[in-house]
Amino acid sequence: PEKPHYFWQTVMTAPEQELLCIFGTGDFGRSLGQRLLQTGYRVVYGSRRPHSCGPLPQGAQVMSHEAAAQSAGVIFLCVHRENYDFLETLVTQLKGKVLVDVSNNLKKNVYPEANAEYLQRLIPGAHVVKAFNTLSAWSLQNGPSDASRQVYLCGNSAEAKQQVVETATKLGFNVLDRGTLSAARELEDFPLQLFPEWRLPLRLAFGLTAFFFFYLLIRDVVYTYVEQDKDISFRIMVSLANKVFPIVSLIMLSLCYLPGVVAAFLQLYRGTKYKRFPDWLDRWMLCRKQLGLLALGFASLHVLYTLIIPIRYYVRFRIAESTISKIKENQTSVFDTTMAWRVDSYYAMGILGFGLYLLLGISSLPSVSNALSWREFSFIQSKLGYLTLFFCTFHTYLYGWDKFLRPSYYKWYTPPGYMLCLVVPSVVMALKLVILLPCVDRSLTRIRRGWERTDPEGDSKKSLLT
Amino acid sequence: PEKPHYFWQTVMTAPEQELLCIFGTGDFGRSLGQRLLQTGYRVVYGSRRPHSCGPLPQGAQVMSHEAAAQSAGVIFLCVHRENYDFLETLVTQLKGKVLVDVSNNLKKNVYPEANAEYLQRLIPGAHVVKAFNTLSAWSLQNGPSDASRQVYLCGNSAEAKQQVVETATKLGFNVLDRGTLSAARELEDFPLQLFPEWRLPLRLAFGLTAFFFFYLLIRDVVYTYVEQDKDISFRIMVSLANKVFPIVSLIMLSLCYLPGVVAAFLQLYRGTKYKRFPDWLDRWMLCRKQLGLLALGFASLHVLYTLIIPIRYYVRFRIAESTISKIKENQTSVFDTTMAWRVDSYYAMGILGFGLYLLLGISSLPSVSNALSWREFSFIQSKLGYLTLFFCTFHTYLYGWDKFLRPSYYKWYTPPGYMLCLVVPSVVMALKLVILLPCVDRSLTRIRRGWERTDPEGDSKKSLLT
Amino acid sequence: PEKPHYFWQTVMTAPEQELLCIFGTGDFGRSLGQRLLQTGYRVVYGSRRPHSCGPLPQGAQVMSHEAAAQSAGVIFLCVHRENYDFLETLVTQLKGKVLVDVSNNLKKNVYPEANAEYLQRLIPGAHVVKAFNTLSAWSLQNGPSDASRQVYLCGNSAEAKQQVVETATKLGFNVLDRGTLSAARELEDFPLQLFPEWRLPLRLAFGLTAFFFFYLLIRDVVYTYVEQDKDISFRIMVSLANKVFPIVSLIMLSLCYLPGVVAAFLQLYRGTKYKRFPDWLDRWMLCRKQLGLLALGFASLHVLYTLIIPIRYYVRFRIAESTISKIKENQTSVFDTTMAWRVDSYYAMGILGFGLYLLLGISSLPSVSNALSWREFSFIQSKLGYLTLFFCTFHTYLYGWDKFLRPSYYKWYTPPGYMLCLVVPSVVMALKLVILLPCVDRSLTRIRRGWERTDPEGDSKKSLLT
Repeated sequence: PEKPHYFWQTVMTAPEQELLCIFGTGDFGRSLGQRLLQTGYRVVYGSRRPHSCGPLPQGAQVMSHEAAAQSAGVIFLCVHRENYDFLETLVTQLKGKVLVDVSNNLKKNVYPEANAEYLQRLIPGAHVVKAFNTLSAWSLQNGPSDASRQVYLCGNSAEAKQQVVETATKLGFNVLDRGTLSAARELEDFPLQLFPEWRLPLRLAFGLTAFFFFYLLIRDVVYTYVEQDKDISFRIMVSLANKVFPIVSLIMLSLCYLPGVVAAFLQLYRGTKYKRFPDWLDRWMLCRKQLGLLALGFASLHVLYTLIIPIRYYVRFRIAESTISKIKENQTSVFDTTMAWRVDSYYAMGILGFGLYLLLGISSLPSVSNALSWREFSFIQSKLGYLTLFFCTFHTYLYGWDKFLRPSYYKWYTPPGYMLCLVVPSVVMALKLVILLPCVDRSLTRIRRGWERTDPEGDSKKSLLT
Repeated sequence: PEKPHYFWQTVMTAPEQELLCIFGTGDFGRSLGQRLLQTGYRVVYGSRRPHSCGPLPQGAQVMSHEAAAQSAGVIFLCVHRENYDFLETLVTQLKGKVLVDVSNNLKKNVYPEANAEYLQRLIPGAHVVKAFNTLSAWSLQNGPSDASRQVYLCGNSAEAKQQVVETATKLGFNVLDRGTLSAARELEDFPLQLFPEWRLPLRLAFGLTAFFFFYLLIRDVVYTYVEQDKDISFRIMVSLANKVFPIVSLIMLSLCYLPGVVAAFLQLYRGTKYKRFPDWLDRWMLCRKQLGLLALGFASLHVLYTLIIPIRYYVRFRIAESTISKIKENQTSVFDTTMAWRVDSYYAMGILGFGLYLLLGISSLPSVSNALSWREFSFIQSKLGYLTLFFCTFHTYLYGWDKFLRPSYYKWYTPPGYMLCLVVPSVVMALKLVILLPCVDRSLTRIRRGWERTDPEGDSKKSLLT
Repeated sequence: PEKPHYFWQTVMTAPEQELLCIFGTGDFGRSLGQRLLQTGYRVVYGSRRPHSCGPLPQGAQVMSHEAAAQSAGVIFLCVHRENYDFLETLVTQLKGKVLVDVSNNLKKNVYPEANAEYLQRLIPGAHVVKAFNTLSAWSLQNGPSDASRQVYLCGNSAEAKQQVVETATKLGFNVLDRGTLSAARELEDFPLQLFPEWRLPLRLAFGLTAFFFFYLLIRDVVYTYVEQDKDISFRIMVSLANKVFPIVSLIMLSLCYLPGVVAAFLQLYRGTKYKRFPDWLDRWMLCRKQLGLLALGFASLHVLYTLIIPIRYYVRFRIAESTISKIKENQTSVFDTTMAWRVDSYYAMGILGFGLYLLLGISSLPSVSNALSWREFSFIQSKLGYLTLFFCTFHTYLYGWDKFLRPSYYKWYTPPGYMLCLVVPSVVMALKLVILLPCVDRSLTRIRRGWERTDPEGDSKKSLLT
């Protein structure tokens, strides 16, 4: 369906075809040239050896660097940073031209300055614009695709940027101006990043999962094997997983709220909000969203694992066995109303908690959180977040019920997993309750509005962030 | 990982450090100053008492208002509106300067004009730009975070706005230009809003939930207690909730579609689309999306409550009892094919309805609906929406089946809850069918394309919106 | 809540009210005029018969085209393309004016050039801007609503576009500049599109669903009826659907990954990445996202259909029957550990596969994929995608278990549905394994970095895309 469109474009824009220059006949240069030609531009390549530079997109011209640079106003530099030095011989020809740096590095922090900044220093007379470097090779050759719809650019000259904006828009991309050339480093680091802010939460999640898996493996499977000589290893796949997932989920959810509480106490203790938090607390606070989303993932798995319980072979077998044995032994079982209340409340708390959990997750979607005012966002993440934590913790307490007191549940003197996982959320909620006390709350609010406790004058002055 | 980046920025941009001025040494002023200093700007504070204005971020200068204003081209005004009058003495110094108004009010509609408009009137020679007021204090001090990624700005001077855009971009924010200073009121109201368009639907949802909860509590629990002297109050947690949620969900879903139908009949009756709808209908139509999303929330809870049925203690107990009693009484039960058809159809309708419900919800996400053409959006929301309503209504009718006719279900002469909840959707679907009749549809289409019934010429002229 | 805002705007902006001109008094012209008047603009209509042009929004003036054109700097052309020719008489009055073309056509590709381009050719002296044509009539009259929040515009004059941007922003819309007037055709086609990229995947999904529905209907229902004279048609609603949905889902998921594998082998065979793929492969690759999302939809239905199994009448009846018959025949059933392992693994694979499936779906949301670097996006879609495919395929193999070998499962010499659906995913995974072999992987990586196999020099040159 796109085809006829391109056809018309080529035909209609014939009289106004603009000429663009590309330095570099490598993969990036060829892909870009191909796409520019398709969109109706004329393209000239600048090459060291114009007559033996390998195959180029049909319709493109090849010239020496000098001739190519003079023929066009905009030059795309598709060359590795290591080879920028040849440009020094072209200082005259590049004067006043728009020089688009599309380069990326293979690693972060190899050079002291960004490629584009280095380029600008090399050719001060040119208007360097950093752009197109965040796109995948595929989308450069074929047009915008999923994660490559946006061209980020930066540069010191507004006019130069405008020219690049127009070309990128014509190629079908959305353009986001990131300001002056000092943002180039950020743009050059972007394609290299692989979920940097997810690493810590992911490691934590894996660590907790592994710990509780082996803890429960020993308490459940190994214990039964050793003490009762029964092999229940088949329970690993579902029963054990369905203990590990909710435990990890609840701990990680409470770890989302712990740093906020710690920060509040630190501010109360210091009597100011302008003193910087220790680094570990800063980093912890910055990954709360990721912690919460991982916790939601584990909670979702817990929900699915719970819902398939009645269709498991093991469960069906046991229910049939229990019915049969009841009949054979002619038992009369009495309906236990307390049990019914407890089990139903347990499920209701779990469902309501999971519902709110999902709401928190949805409000974390970029397009949703962007549409919220921060008052709305903090209402959801803080008020509803604590309600979620309360529901989920209460759900776990209901699961435990009176098992906390029965010694038989402490196999090999170890507490069951769900008891361990209740520690952090209980502490968080207790500390939060302290903060909500009117007198504490008043002090904290004052501090957060900028008030500072100034016991000795000089000390307070020093406390300001440097 | 961000640290080295800031480090380089500070080092690299050293020679071109720009000087910005901040009026006001309160919380907002200090937080902003701290962030500006971190990003590589030089900052000078203007203060009434430059020598006793309390602690300020290290690296910032303090001067009198006059001196500070003269030293910089851009001045951030971090002062409450009540104290703007001191600026009148600075009219000369502020002439031609960019004056960034970051103020917010504590309440809406306290003043007849927006703070920024008032400021512009006070200092007509300055270029007032409204900006940064929608950010949270945290993100102002620490950089963009979830709901504070976007800086909205407005102002009458394009050049002044451009300068603020550059600073905001350098601080890491995305900037959205909202036009001239007449948009300032909207920007100032934004941080105060707490889900304004959700209030009506939320109240409705709470009202319906409360009504049906007590209605069913009386019909189910109280009735059984009074008439049969049995305590089944444990059913409140799951059984009762799982009746209330689907009922409220279906009613709210049909209330999404009712205003559209009412509007169509109103247009048919009036013979024009240019006459404004009554206020209540306008307000109702504007909250259809929120009604639908709440309905989806209730439907999701209904799904979860339904899926845990087989693992409830009460259900397992009753199934075992029934099997045991069958054996003891040596009953031979016959498989009822009609029952199998009915129950399976009931579930299938529910699942398909819920699937479409989810689709409607997903297409309401801002980023998804922005990517759709309105033809696509209205196809989903209207065509698939009515299909959803049909599936869900049919699901409820299948639940009722033949109970509609049995008097034993009318306890204390009240109809069961699901019968009550079928009223609105049935009416909506009947009215929609009328609208789909060819003759009615034709008239409506003509009206919606701009045609007007002009019985008496003058009357029609009057009908135009004023 | 919006009311007071408009009130103030009207009052405050009174002295600076700008005058805009609208040509055309049809539906679009009236709706636009009404909205402009509400926002505080003055509006003058240009009409052929200024004294008998029907009812217009109160407050608007009507003049002849000539007079109206001269009075304003911006003219909105709300006229069908067929009637543009009257403008030729106004060439003098329109010189230097901004002419906003809001027109749409009823069909695509009717005219050789876009309306706006035709208009520019007709009135070369005017600055034509294409805008507002993608909005729904409702949102034009009432302000931004769900799928009509964005005004796309294009035009050759930056100043003319800026004027239209300001008006659109004042009306409350977000503006997206799509470049020069050559983008007009795309903008004019946008409102006509109804999920073009979903058509092929939807047709495929319907085809597969229909095929497997009838295939399984014959194998399950008809076979049982013919061979055993039993009517099990009630199984259509849930049991049959729950076989068709997972089958279609798995096939469509594997069809997402097949084109990538085919493309890799094609590149290996051709020894270059610069030769264009055949058209069918291109089209296939462009609809992978839609294939995947449909597959996710089917998988979600499969999950819901599976989870309601234990509350079906048919299942409860059968379980009770089996318990009763066990007791009557005094069977002693032995717990089968292999069976427990197998069933639990089957469910665990399914849940983990579905969890990853959901993750893929979430990362396809526009706002999420825009926030990812393409390295992150391709990690999710490729690495996690293949893991999803592996889990789901393994889940299906576990479902089959040893049934592959038992002839009794080949009713009427046809294999069960799940065997058929395993063909494509197994092939895709086998081919992927070949590609992952070190030697193959090395060649492919080289080719994807731009290397070309150049057996005969001339041949390779020809191979470049034309």
